[in-house]
Amino acid sequence: MPSLPDIMTPDAEALAKAAGKGRRVTLPAGSPEHDLFTGLTRMGDNTLILGHRVSEWCGHAPVLEEDIALANVALDMIGQTQLWLGLAGTVEGHGRSADDLAFLRDAWHFRNLLLVERPNRDFGHTLMRQFLFDAWHQPMLKALEGSSDDRIGEIALKAGKEVAYHLERSADLVIRLGDGTEESHAKMKDALERLWPYAGEMFLADEVDVRLAHEGLMPDPAGIRPAWDETVAEILAEATLNRPDSDFAHKGGKQGRHTEDLGHLLTSMQWLQRAYPGATW
Amino acid sequence: MPSLPDIMTPDAEALAKAAGKGRRVTLPAGSPEHDLFTGLTRMGDNTLILGHRVSEWCGHAPVLEEDIALANVALDMIGQTQLWLGLAGTVEGHGRSADDLAFLRDAWHFRNLLLVERPNRDFGHTLMRQFLFDAWHQPMLKALEGSSDDRIGEIALKAGKEVAYHLERSADLVIRLGDGTEESHAKMKDALERLWPYAGEMFLADEVDVRLAHEGLMPDPAGIRPAWDETVAEILAEATLNRPDSDFAHKGGKQGRHTEDLGHLLTSMQWLQRAYPGATW
Repeated sequence: MPSLPDIMTPDAEALAKAAGKGRRVTLPAGSPEHDLFTGLTRMGDNTLILGHRVSEWCGHAPVLEEDIALANVALDMIGQTQLWLGLAGTVEGHGRSADDLAFLRDAWHFRNLLLVERPNRDFGHTLMRQFLFDAWHQPMLKALEGSSDDRIGEIALKAGKEVAYHLERSADLVIRLGDGTEESHAKMKDALERLWPYAGEMFLADEVDVRLAHEGLMPDPAGIRPAWDETVAEILAEATLNRPDSDFAHKGGKQGRHTEDLGHLLTSMQWLQRAYPGATW
Repeated sequence: MPSLPDIMTPDAEALAKAAGKGRRVTLPAGSPEHDLFTGLTRMGDNTLILGHRVSEWCGHAPVLEEDIALANVALDMIGQTQLWLGLAGTVEGHGRSADDLAFLRDAWHFRNLLLVERPNRDFGHTLMRQFLFDAWHQPMLKALEGSSDDRIGEIALKAGKEVAYHLERSADLVIRLGDGTEESHAKMKDALERLWPYAGEMFLADEVDVRLAHEGLMPDPAGIRPAWDETVAEILAEATLNRPDSDFAHKGGKQGRHTEDLGHLLTSMQWLQRAYPGATW
């Protein structure tokens, strides 16, 4: 009988160590450190989950140039994740690395927006999701440049350069597909209507946001809305798409209440580190 | 900030223990115990993976009665898995339970047929896959009733009663959908053509099969073919479907070489025991 080589052997010591790494945040809720940890994981979990979603297109995009462009955007976001979650681990002070936070937390510890965990569906839907996110991400990073914490300002400055390009690209594609053929227009209209109820969460502040804004660490999310509204109005007009009327907003992602889709994404994303914690190349 | 309760805490000791449970079979290849362990995991992995696939329909079937029927078939197969993998663990003699074998092995240690890991696609495709499997499973179990190992004979007798009903039901639905509307006929034709290249693996013997047959423990897979051919010919004729000409057969599942689809199924199925080994209700 043909037999495969024993590719990897799980390591009992590494598994035991991992048990502690997946644990709940131990910082006291409401403490400045806990607030900052939460704010940083919100930034890092957004880029991690959206980065992973976009990476699912690798090898499947409609044309080679878009395949490579999507992979580059995904890589930018994973790189930003490394910075945000790395700083989150430092702030927490319990020795968790960016990798530990990415691969060993469970769904209910993730703090990303529900928007970024939406499944890819078709290419137009993926680009519409990216555009709605980028149009928030760009002014958010701009505001974070002025954080009272220099470490945050530095990450925001670096990420902002990449995201300016992401926004230019996703806006351009939303226009080309919205103002394209009858079929591409219909798909972009459908994507906009599906995703719109997930946009509002980006501007909803909770107590953590209020305290972080008070300390000058991170901006009040509501303050990002005017810039987003302006970009969205301009691009949708060019794309011959109507802005949906409804203001209904799904919420909960920022507080750890997620849709089933995040769970499925994590089982796939975290498999290796769950089965073989501490595995290295 | 609203906060979820800390639902579960990973247990370091349980994780360390699990590391050993996912390990490669330690029995010497070619030994009688290794052959029997392999034969038993082939039976148990088939019912585990197909049972899980069918359970994915739960809450999604086209009508309530079919939803319940599919869930019952899935439960039968999971129950059979418990028996086959339980005996496999006993034969191995290293203290692995059916649960350990189901939830802690990796894709390359699974020995199921490629047919059963095919994704569900539509309802008709799911039923065609079930029929092609049941038409093999039923005579296979019949032959296993006469195994020189009484423990195998007992499991086969018990499972055979359930599978007689599975076959009756899947054959009936293949006929109704094949000889149904123009649309249902087209879908069943498509399903048959997609699945046909995965049927041949059921009748391919390797060295393990030859040795098991020599010991009277399990039948030569080739010997199951006439009964399967007869059932398939009869049912396809009633369903107004043509048996595909090609004899090409994908193979490798029985030796642990699987498609990407098995990996995705396992990440979802094994998540809980990977993150929280030894978790109990």
